[in-house]
Amino acid sequence: MKNVRFFASDNNAGVHPKVMEALMAVNIGHAISYGADIYTEETTELFKKEFETDLDIFFVYNGTGANVTALQVMARSFEAIICAQTAHINTDECGAPEKQTGCKLLALETPDGKLTKELIAKCLHAVGDQHHSQPRVVSITQSSEMGTVYTIEELKDICDFAHANNLLVHLDGARIANAAAALGCRFAEITWKVGIDALSFGGTKNGLMFGEAVIFFNPQLATNMPFIRKQTAQLHSKMRFISAQFGVYFKDELWRKNALHANKMAAILAEKTSKIPNVKLTQKVQVNSVFATIPKEWIKPLQEKSFFYVWNEEKSEVRWMTSFDTTEEDITNFVELL
Amino acid sequence: MKNVRFFASDNNAGVHPKVMEALMAVNIGHAISYGADIYTEETTELFKKEFETDLDIFFVYNGTGANVTALQVMARSFEAIICAQTAHINTDECGAPEKQTGCKLLALETPDGKLTKELIAKCLHAVGDQHHSQPRVVSITQSSEMGTVYTIEELKDICDFAHANNLLVHLDGARIANAAAALGCRFAEITWKVGIDALSFGGTKNGLMFGEAVIFFNPQLATNMPFIRKQTAQLHSKMRFISAQFGVYFKDELWRKNALHANKMAAILAEKTSKIPNVKLTQKVQVNSVFATIPKEWIKPLQEKSFFYVWNEEKSEVRWMTSFDTTEEDITNFVELL
Amino acid sequence: MKNVRFFASDNNAGVHPKVMEALMAVNIGHAISYGADIYTEETTELFKKEFETDLDIFFVYNGTGANVTALQVMARSFEAIICAQTAHINTDECGAPEKQTGCKLLALETPDGKLTKELIAKCLHAVGDQHHSQPRVVSITQSSEMGTVYTIEELKDICDFAHANNLLVHLDGARIANAAAALGCRFAEITWKVGIDALSFGGTKNGLMFGEAVIFFNPQLATNMPFIRKQTAQLHSKMRFISAQFGVYFKDELWRKNALHANKMAAILAEKTSKIPNVKLTQKVQVNSVFATIPKEWIKPLQEKSFFYVWNEEKSEVRWMTSFDTTEEDITNFVELL
Amino acid sequence: MKNVRFFASDNNAGVHPKVMEALMAVNIGHAISYGADIYTEETTELFKKEFETDLDIFFVYNGTGANVTALQVMARSFEAIICAQTAHINTDECGAPEKQTGCKLLALETPDGKLTKELIAKCLHAVGDQHHSQPRVVSITQSSEMGTVYTIEELKDICDFAHANNLLVHLDGARIANAAAALGCRFAEITWKVGIDALSFGGTKNGLMFGEAVIFFNPQLATNMPFIRKQTAQLHSKMRFISAQFGVYFKDELWRKNALHANKMAAILAEKTSKIPNVKLTQKVQVNSVFATIPKEWIKPLQEKSFFYVWNEEKSEVRWMTSFDTTEEDITNFVELL
Repeated sequence: MKNVRFFASDNNAGVHPKVMEALMAVNIGHAISYGADIYTEETTELFKKEFETDLDIFFVYNGTGANVTALQVMARSFEAIICAQTAHINTDECGAPEKQTGCKLLALETPDGKLTKELIAKCLHAVGDQHHSQPRVVSITQSSEMGTVYTIEELKDICDFAHANNLLVHLDGARIANAAAALGCRFAEITWKVGIDALSFGGTKNGLMFGEAVIFFNPQLATNMPFIRKQTAQLHSKMRFISAQFGVYFKDELWRKNALHANKMAAILAEKTSKIPNVKLTQKVQVNSVFATIPKEWIKPLQEKSFFYVWNEEKSEVRWMTSFDTTEEDITNFVELL
Repeated sequence: MKNVRFFASDNNAGVHPKVMEALMAVNIGHAISYGADIYTEETTELFKKEFETDLDIFFVYNGTGANVTALQVMARSFEAIICAQTAHINTDECGAPEKQTGCKLLALETPDGKLTKELIAKCLHAVGDQHHSQPRVVSITQSSEMGTVYTIEELKDICDFAHANNLLVHLDGARIANAAAALGCRFAEITWKVGIDALSFGGTKNGLMFGEAVIFFNPQLATNMPFIRKQTAQLHSKMRFISAQFGVYFKDELWRKNALHANKMAAILAEKTSKIPNVKLTQKVQVNSVFATIPKEWIKPLQEKSFFYVWNEEKSEVRWMTSFDTTEEDITNFVELL
Repeated sequence: MKNVRFFASDNNAGVHPKVMEALMAVNIGHAISYGADIYTEETTELFKKEFETDLDIFFVYNGTGANVTALQVMARSFEAIICAQTAHINTDECGAPEKQTGCKLLALETPDGKLTKELIAKCLHAVGDQHHSQPRVVSITQSSEMGTVYTIEELKDICDFAHANNLLVHLDGARIANAAAALGCRFAEITWKVGIDALSFGGTKNGLMFGEAVIFFNPQLATNMPFIRKQTAQLHSKMRFISAQFGVYFKDELWRKNALHANKMAAILAEKTSKIPNVKLTQKVQVNSVFATIPKEWIKPLQEKSFFYVWNEEKSEVRWMTSFDTTEEDITNFVELL
Repeated sequence: MKNVRFFASDNNAGVHPKVMEALMAVNIGHAISYGADIYTEETTELFKKEFETDLDIFFVYNGTGANVTALQVMARSFEAIICAQTAHINTDECGAPEKQTGCKLLALETPDGKLTKELIAKCLHAVGDQHHSQPRVVSITQSSEMGTVYTIEELKDICDFAHANNLLVHLDGARIANAAAALGCRFAEITWKVGIDALSFGGTKNGLMFGEAVIFFNPQLATNMPFIRKQTAQLHSKMRFISAQFGVYFKDELWRKNALHANKMAAILAEKTSKIPNVKLTQKVQVNSVFATIPKEWIKPLQEKSFFYVWNEEKSEVRWMTSFDTTEEDITNFVELL
């Protein structure tokens, strides 16, 4: 089993070999802890270059850590965070946002995991009324938990509407690389250039071992973050081992190569499985996930041979994810199983 | 500077080569995320063997994460946590325990960072009174933040007194390896055998890259921990990369070798520096730290050549720490600088 | 304006004269504070008699205070509270439940403010999965925020289903008197006899000045409540002045008289206004509120003469509430205005 | 027992007759709830007149409610609140400040319950360091929990020092009336004129039934308070019944009359008891409390006849408090018992 690859999740994959090399390369001598080392300084510069702007960056441990520290910075406990029902912060973090921020989440139903300004507008009826949590943050996910991608125009629309209504915009970018790869754009174009205020920048799902980054494009947001990060137990001591990973992630656009590959594998998987009778895709395949309904009785035996998650038991909907290390052979084998 | 070693902290050291090898060894194929992988299963068994008992173990990201998840399990918000003034949870976690647990910390002055039952008894006057936070947890640190070590008898005394007074005992074991090495004992002897209920088991300060473990010796304490860990953003997806580190940590007692070496280096450092006029040790050197007062005007120039932290500015007291990779040459060079 | 009565809310009414007399009657000499006085002892006995059972009772300041202390007792931060979208805890407490408990609220859409077991069942799909807030409490409101009433059978159905699924049931009884009056039953029949575990028992909306009660029918739930109440700033020092109000509230069923009157006034108001062209009732009138759509252009001028709240701006839906002191003349005048 | 007065606490007293009259006087017709009524408007003006300045005022339920809402406004969770060990917020609120704010309390030992700038200075060593809770608020109590009073100069000293160090000053004024009466000054002189930023203004211990006020002298502090008050379950619906009490409290300086009387009674009690052999006063008697050591064996029998609290069991120290309704006869009787 140890050498097998399956389609359960992109975080079931291991670490990209170049990332492993980078970890070894910085493992010499001592380095000041908690981020005051030269590797972190270098990587910070790489982020600024990659994002084509000045910015404030804070490394944390994981996606939930990134989301809840960013949201603590952006909202006080009596404020509300608007998101999709399917958002990771709403469904997959065991209530971490509520616990850490004290805020109410206003979770909106969407067909495809994507918010729109019309949906957001529904939450704005009680502004200024002390009885109601005050909307303050819109949190969107790019690419979304349903494998869909916001276009640059859609992002701009949301940010403009949010800012016009005194809302800040947080982007959960656990899979932002897959989105940028799909859109063929640079990170700047789908973040600060469209008006994103804060970004959870992920890498673990795209070849890193651990560590995510919170990025603020508005320097005022960064002021309290060092303390919030520490108080949320998200400050790593041996920081160079996070910085080194992001350093190599940006080298020769390793992030894009990995993401493009995963996206391409999903496209192939979708193309092949959709031809199988009784398999029906339920979402557009824009990045590295395939959502499909399959006959209920197929699920158990299939999972035993190649593990994956059931997304919606009632509908017999499953999710298959590809990753940077998925091979065409993996897909062929899986399609044969089906 | 990149190859230099200094005496600022044991977390300024890198990763032990065997740990790096172990990380590479598990980097093959896919593994179920969030701890349901075979590496985590194997390492869990190693923990049980090493501790000579059944136990519940939960990997988290760092020491603060370990402390605040363990404390959330052990205390409700209206309860109080008794600790030394110098405890890491009291002074070095930016209020994470208060934020995460909602509890009051009752921090007691000690000469050497060690609690006693007499000190703890001072906090027990308002039991049952709704106006006062109810004492519930005693948190001690082994080895302590002052580089001192509790004897087995001292630990037993505290645990017995605590249990007799309806208190649970948490051990912050960020440097438990150094303590066990100093005492020449096994982990079991200074944890569950003396009555410790929950343990933050550290490794990062002794050669690991990231990841700590929360261990419960009472199975009832473990029930809620999976959810508390996730809600505190301390659940790693690619768990095999934490498990692998602890796996090799226990192999041939790597932990003890590393800790013994660091302790020995501190002893040499203490022995040599204490002979220097105007350098005066302020704490017993039992593990891998040396506390000393030195002339105020020495500090700045010395730090520039070999960084370390001032512990108490008023007293001109500094802290020097050794680590698994400190060499005798490092010490000779540093003593010469002095 | 000072002598006018309007239909904005039952908490716009004053204090029933008998309640005022009771406050004066206990204003003699000293009384031990924080509830250890004889008046509180007496009123506690009255509660037990009224509810026909042993119970634990804790006076707090207001409805939000009652709800959030009860919920803190019933749920840990990683657990979820299931309620209707329209529930007071979800929409009218500025996020107090999330802040105070740390829990996620799972708010369900309902046509009439009432939950059903079918709706609750939708929330039970991820039990035991560490990534998801664990459903633990069902909170229902009797009478509901939409002026509807659960039948005894409906309550029993919900409680049975909840208990079969390891859920506790909390009843927000801010207007429980109106419900009991409407059903012609005693409090026992719609609380512990159907399986309610904890009750926020209100009185302010039915003639009291301040103070509500949290009642636990399961003695295990009460253990931590004294501390939770104090920590939530809900423990009144001069407790006799809350106890005295509830004392007289139960005398000769003052609560029922007040509630029956308010309900009757609402029935008359509904009957008269429903005959007016362009006024359309939108909810059953079972207790003391009337929901209706009226022409948008009527609202402003009407509010200026007799204040009330718009419930749903889009639909031009308004809410009119009657109270223990509403007179038929008030209604006649209001209908004339319309 | 019902007609007896004793020396346990000033909150064991009832309600001043004029306050009861004021409650009855506003009990006519309807009033908009939650503070938008004319009585609250009038009382707000009275506060401004009494304090000789513009200010923002928010009524809450009790002293703990006032303290924790004010502190939530003043500090973020990663900041620290400096106070005396004996401060009510530190010892008598069951951890409400930690729970509600998430902050660490830095509690300092004092001989008399009073902070000084020298003591505060001890807490300022780690400013800007992300590992440590950042000092942000100094909270002092006037008159203090030990019955002592800050002079105007002492207050100014603390405020000046605080502001010079980027700290805000909160005054817990649960007994501010007793202090102002003792100093023979107006409220302005011991609050905003010396630099106090926020005030918990109490009345319950001086003749009111319920309700306290949070006052901000800096309008920026008030912005978030409406939401924080609601989220902390401290917003009363029938607000006129709090406003009315404070309205009459200011009329003809009822507050001063009550406080002067209580202070005078304490002076007499102190004078008489201090002459009794084996009774030794342990604090200056500046307001309405007498701290004394008495023989241990006296306590039980004395309490049975006239209840009071033991302050320090080890030292056999007791606290006797007088209130607005204490009579000289009460004192004579009590002294005779002694």
